Amino acid sequence: MPISKSKIKQIASLQQKKYRLKEGLFIVEGTKVVDEFLNSNFELECVFCVQDVSEKYKNYHPTIVTEVELKKISSLKSPNKILTLFKIHKNKNISDTDLKLVLDDVNDPGNLGTIIRLCDWFGIEELICSKNTVDCYNTKVIQSTMGSLTRVRVYYVDLKLYLSKVKVPIYIADMDGENIYRADLPKNGIIVMGNEANGVSSEVKEFSSNTLSIPRFGTLRATESLNVATATSIILSEFKRSIGRLD
Amino acid sequence: MPISKSKIKQIASLQQKKYRLKEGLFIVEGTKVVDEFLNSNFELECVFCVQDVSEKYKNYHPTIVTEVELKKISSLKSPNKILTLFKIHKNKNISDTDLKLVLDDVNDPGNLGTIIRLCDWFGIEELICSKNTVDCYNTKVIQSTMGSLTRVRVYYVDLKLYLSKVKVPIYIADMDGENIYRADLPKNGIIVMGNEANGVSSEVKEFSSNTLSIPRFGTLRATESLNVATATSIILSEFKRSIGRLD
Repeated sequence: MPISKSKIKQIASLQQKKYRLKEGLFIVEGTKVVDEFLNSNFELECVFCVQDVSEKYKNYHPTIVTEVELKKISSLKSPNKILTLFKIHKNKNISDTDLKLVLDDVNDPGNLGTIIRLCDWFGIEELICSKNTVDCYNTKVIQSTMGSLTRVRVYYVDLKLYLSKVKVPIYIADMDGENIYRADLPKNGIIVMGNEANGVSSEVKEFSSNTLSIPRFGTLRATESLNVATATSIILSEFKRSIGRLD
Repeated sequence: MPISKSKIKQIASLQQKKYRLKEGLFIVEGTKVVDEFLNSNFELECVFCVQDVSEKYKNYHPTIVTEVELKKISSLKSPNKILTLFKIHKNKNISDTDLKLVLDDVNDPGNLGTIIRLCDWFGIEELICSKNTVDCYNTKVIQSTMGSLTRVRVYYVDLKLYLSKVKVPIYIADMDGENIYRADLPKNGIIVMGNEANGVSSEVKEFSSNTLSIPRFGTLRATESLNVATATSIILSEFKRSIGRLD
């Protein structure tokens, strides 16, 4: 049975956050990323795949589609054999231990995807985002995280409310802070990264106990700032390096 | 005088590497990035701008174009008032001191753009690329480096030939190397980063004196690897941090 027009329309609608929230579903595509989600605690809704991988996915009761149909439902330029829908996680409570990363209005899906991969690499299991941070179930984010989202829990919260209640030190990344290479960094704490253009908002800055900066080494007129994803990688590396030295 | 069809065609052709090399020219767009190139030692070829910024750029003898014409010659979705052509630098000799970054077949323009910004931030003045690394005069690279290319010299060389002659230690970034947090890193040396999918090629690995890895902290099944740009940011930070601590 070919895939119905209404189903095509429903899947296409999931490229928008509003419909993802309404339906509680998001799209995962391509065998590699799909396999990671199938092996995670995300709950599968349904599978659409082309004939030549149908045997591999037969236990998931796939709907077989043609390449042309796959192209219609896919958000990728070059669809890759399989498209699945998974259920959006309901948020558990955020833990009050460990090192956590907070994003204050990060806008770019590529940056969020890179940051989720970094959290996965550095063992940061909870990523807390402001309500205006780009949605982690955005198809571009899902495809660029390469499955890391199955290992990092992402929360969207009222940041001011959240930060007002935490008991660990809060570190803001900003241009005029303490030299991070000289700072004494704790194992537990909260690191806040800001928006691509505006940095951390002044409202959120009020909650910080510390401001950290990555020194600039260029001797000529220098680049304005590091990209938020590369700055995050350096900051997470600094927080983790004392543990990393012991491994 | 309106911009001629042949000029439009010539400018459009510069979006391809082959024509950039043939003409020795590349495109820089948007007031902010153009201003950085105008204040650099890149030599200006010509300026096309819309009426409302023509006064600002009058000393550069701009050709005034309409918004419609600008859209025709621009490589951007939303052209920003000005498009210029600059002359491609002729390579000087690579110096044999300082810390240098080498890229072995990095393919993605966004990654190269990010890496050039990182070089600028960390004071790495020479970036040496394999012949198959994406062209730094690619319009996407130019626009994403935000002017950093005016402060970082990029060379395209036969990597094997280049590495066979250097006298400083060569560090390869790879999955199975020495824990970078424990390594004793020198002030002068060469850091080699590899292709997005395949890492550093075996031919290039033969020249390395050392292999460095960034430890992975995730306790669950972990992300396969860091993106080459984020890995570069962590590695440059590690090489510079002992100097950074003294600032």
